Amino acid sequence: MTTSTAQTTPPRHFLSTLDWSRSELESLLTDARELKANRRTIARQDLAGKSVALVFFNPSLRTRSSFEIGVFEMGGHAVVLEPGKGAWPIEYRDGVVMDAEAEEHVEEVARVLSRYCDIIAVRAFPKFQRWEDDREDLVIRQFAKYATVPVLNMETITHPCQELALMLALKEKLGTTDGKKFLLTWTYHPRPLNTAVANSALIAAAKFGFDVTLLCPTPEYVLDSRYMDAAKNFAAEQGRSITVTHDVDAAYAGANVVYAKSWGALPYFGRWEEEKPIRDAHKHFIVDERKMALTDNGYFSHCLPMRRNVKATDAVTSGPRSLVIEEAENRLHVQKALLRRLVGLGGVSP
Amino acid sequence: MTTSTAQTTPPRHFLSTLDWSRSELESLLTDARELKANRRTIARQDLAGKSVALVFFNPSLRTRSSFEIGVFEMGGHAVVLEPGKGAWPIEYRDGVVMDAEAEEHVEEVARVLSRYCDIIAVRAFPKFQRWEDDREDLVIRQFAKYATVPVLNMETITHPCQELALMLALKEKLGTTDGKKFLLTWTYHPRPLNTAVANSALIAAAKFGFDVTLLCPTPEYVLDSRYMDAAKNFAAEQGRSITVTHDVDAAYAGANVVYAKSWGALPYFGRWEEEKPIRDAHKHFIVDERKMALTDNGYFSHCLPMRRNVKATDAVTSGPRSLVIEEAENRLHVQKALLRRLVGLGGVSP
Amino acid sequence: MTTSTAQTTPPRHFLSTLDWSRSELESLLTDARELKANRRTIARQDLAGKSVALVFFNPSLRTRSSFEIGVFEMGGHAVVLEPGKGAWPIEYRDGVVMDAEAEEHVEEVARVLSRYCDIIAVRAFPKFQRWEDDREDLVIRQFAKYATVPVLNMETITHPCQELALMLALKEKLGTTDGKKFLLTWTYHPRPLNTAVANSALIAAAKFGFDVTLLCPTPEYVLDSRYMDAAKNFAAEQGRSITVTHDVDAAYAGANVVYAKSWGALPYFGRWEEEKPIRDAHKHFIVDERKMALTDNGYFSHCLPMRRNVKATDAVTSGPRSLVIEEAENRLHVQKALLRRLVGLGGVSP
Repeated sequence: MTTSTAQTTPPRHFLSTLDWSRSELESLLTDARELKANRRTIARQDLAGKSVALVFFNPSLRTRSSFEIGVFEMGGHAVVLEPGKGAWPIEYRDGVVMDAEAEEHVEEVARVLSRYCDIIAVRAFPKFQRWEDDREDLVIRQFAKYATVPVLNMETITHPCQELALMLALKEKLGTTDGKKFLLTWTYHPRPLNTAVANSALIAAAKFGFDVTLLCPTPEYVLDSRYMDAAKNFAAEQGRSITVTHDVDAAYAGANVVYAKSWGALPYFGRWEEEKPIRDAHKHFIVDERKMALTDNGYFSHCLPMRRNVKATDAVTSGPRSLVIEEAENRLHVQKALLRRLVGLGGVSP
Repeated sequence: MTTSTAQTTPPRHFLSTLDWSRSELESLLTDARELKANRRTIARQDLAGKSVALVFFNPSLRTRSSFEIGVFEMGGHAVVLEPGKGAWPIEYRDGVVMDAEAEEHVEEVARVLSRYCDIIAVRAFPKFQRWEDDREDLVIRQFAKYATVPVLNMETITHPCQELALMLALKEKLGTTDGKKFLLTWTYHPRPLNTAVANSALIAAAKFGFDVTLLCPTPEYVLDSRYMDAAKNFAAEQGRSITVTHDVDAAYAGANVVYAKSWGALPYFGRWEEEKPIRDAHKHFIVDERKMALTDNGYFSHCLPMRRNVKATDAVTSGPRSLVIEEAENRLHVQKALLRRLVGLGGVSP
Repeated sequence: MTTSTAQTTPPRHFLSTLDWSRSELESLLTDARELKANRRTIARQDLAGKSVALVFFNPSLRTRSSFEIGVFEMGGHAVVLEPGKGAWPIEYRDGVVMDAEAEEHVEEVARVLSRYCDIIAVRAFPKFQRWEDDREDLVIRQFAKYATVPVLNMETITHPCQELALMLALKEKLGTTDGKKFLLTWTYHPRPLNTAVANSALIAAAKFGFDVTLLCPTPEYVLDSRYMDAAKNFAAEQGRSITVTHDVDAAYAGANVVYAKSWGALPYFGRWEEEKPIRDAHKHFIVDERKMALTDNGYFSHCLPMRRNVKATDAVTSGPRSLVIEEAENRLHVQKALLRRLVGLGGVSP
């Protein structure tokens, strides 16, 4: 919470990992490993008396569970708000005459929640009509503009908590991530999905020193230039590479990590019927045992929810190299590490 | 909770401030100021082990957040129930053959929740079809009839928690409220809204010794006689006045407080199309800088949610004399004070 | 929660009382009585730091409240999940190509929740299309198959927590249940309802040594053979009887307990229009004072929600021999006893 006397320094938000350095993120992962190893014994009062607003504009299972439980395990309380369902529809644009559907403005929502809570976490998926609009990430940006407490991204057009969970799982298995080969593969899904996790996997893998290959059906499935360029910069800084390919077997060859995700092609944004034939022609991008056999005994993961036998086969998903459950579990631990930092606490002492 | 051996004295409810004296309410505000000033340190175990049911028949953001967090900050737990969504539809009339939609009767709901919880809080807006029905406040009255624990109003046809939050904000700014000028102004909104906050602002301002002016488009917007008469009685007891006017500039002249709210005209209840032309003709009732300049450097407030640039301009809403955020924050503190009293605790010791 | 190193012994679930012995259930009731008598003082930290997932596929008021509050009163935290509303639709069949509605598979849901939580509680009503399908209880069985923590039934095709609550209420009133006469009577309801509570009342009453009479309109309302046969076996083991009758007055004669419930006739499953005339012809099965006068000063109960003056009259429901509120309250206490056991704790010490 912010007391009535407004603080003068704006809080540090967690909107995207683009403005968090690798060493800052590594430090969070170090904390997360401690929190995972000593879950029942440490950090149990780090959020004592504190509240976290979880503002969901879209469904959630793992995110809601892991945040609620993580906050509870640190002595705090999470309030789940679902504007438009259990709460009022909200306006995000500044200066408008509010005579349409929205009953209140994000300025009031963010400022009031800042009085009640210590952190505001927001999930706001794109509207999937115009990418030019969605890429502005208006909802969470406006929360951050008006909030006087830290705002945390629970998935908008990136999914930074998922990035941390994945990187923790990979470090647990691979030790170092530097120089390892990370394959981000598009897979079929009957509907065009958000690019958030793909964007996040790309920039996180690049930031953590992987050589990254992006495998997708056609050049139209390449991700937004903001994230492609950021990944290239991260790679360049560390002497690593970003490769885009449409050749399935070449992409899998020698991979240490295969990360699957489906997403909609940006040039067809809002005109999804036109994308459908391309999408439908690439069902063979499914992750299966034959493809995994091409890798360097690689690990498989996916962010969940995941359609089995559409994005990956049962054998891969439940197989010994699958990290899907581990990655999902890590959401809890990385988020606890993050929440502690956002309220100003230092590293966890073992 | 009530133990299985039923208690014999009915609990004191908080259904309306009409049956709470000014000194009782002032005492709650005194507690609320202490709770606000020492939020992290006092009353932290006052609800230890206790539970509060929050029964929502209508959406909420601030009410849900502030109650959940307030209960948590005092060591208790709030359960959010949404009958008709996550729970069963309920019958409120006694003695009926329940062969329609309702799956259970308020008698069972109230009696069972009384066994589980220590307080039952209810939000139940009017149905907006017949004011004769809505003014009976049947839902919360029936909860109070059957509950064996205190029932608390989270907004029905009045909004007594909002009254307390507003009065606390005004006392913080004005010191004494006696003899100050309180303007309650109707404002335009595209839909006819509940009169609850208007009723509440009227009776609270009168009870706290303000000279009250009610500004509205036509005599049809005057509030229900139950609240008009109560306000007149409170004013008479304290040598203050209640004035109704339709003259905007005269109403603002010299005001210390401008409180804005939109509501539907009672004579058109259920026939809202007929009210629309009057409503549409009074968009100029918006609170703006020109009107505020007529006041005695007055404070502005509104209960939220509020449509910006429809009910009040951006400049007024975000301006230095706006109390909207303070009033909303105060919900938390006054409710904590109230919850403590309802479970039988005395005044907060500083 | 299960730590990342998977445990090897599968957890003991609470899916049905069929595989819990009478003495195990009696032991839970003994604990529940202690927890009820000393609610504010014992077991307050038995779930400290632990979380329970409450997965609701159907509405709930008492179940949600009693579990949330029970977990809180033992120092834990309950997370409420509503797949299909606030979370993703789920696939339950193994090995399918998930190209329809479901976005994720129960295997992932159960395995991930097992990492976050210590217990997973599930409410999943039948779909009411084919009883052959519904009687497989697929949803909770699949949760139990994949979960690595205990899974608890919050009502599927049986309602074992309700059984415990009822048996506790009856033991409180009757002392011993052995040899007492338990009447389970079908009652009218405008819609065909789940047989879960009827199945549960039947097997619980038989297991606890009652002589059980099942009163229903026609032979088509007899319950599924799985539960009829189990009840007969329990009765045979204890020298008691199970009687089916369609003669109202004979059934009530000398009963110590009248337990009312409506349900749909299994032969008409999915063809409910054909059942309607039979149902409509038996509105006189309502529990009223005349029928209760035929009993041995019997107690009345029902699981709630209950339609007044359809299933039982006001006079019976609110009368001095009604246990509906007591049974509902007992949900809290028996569930606390059960939750303790599922996390491996022994009997409550007084």
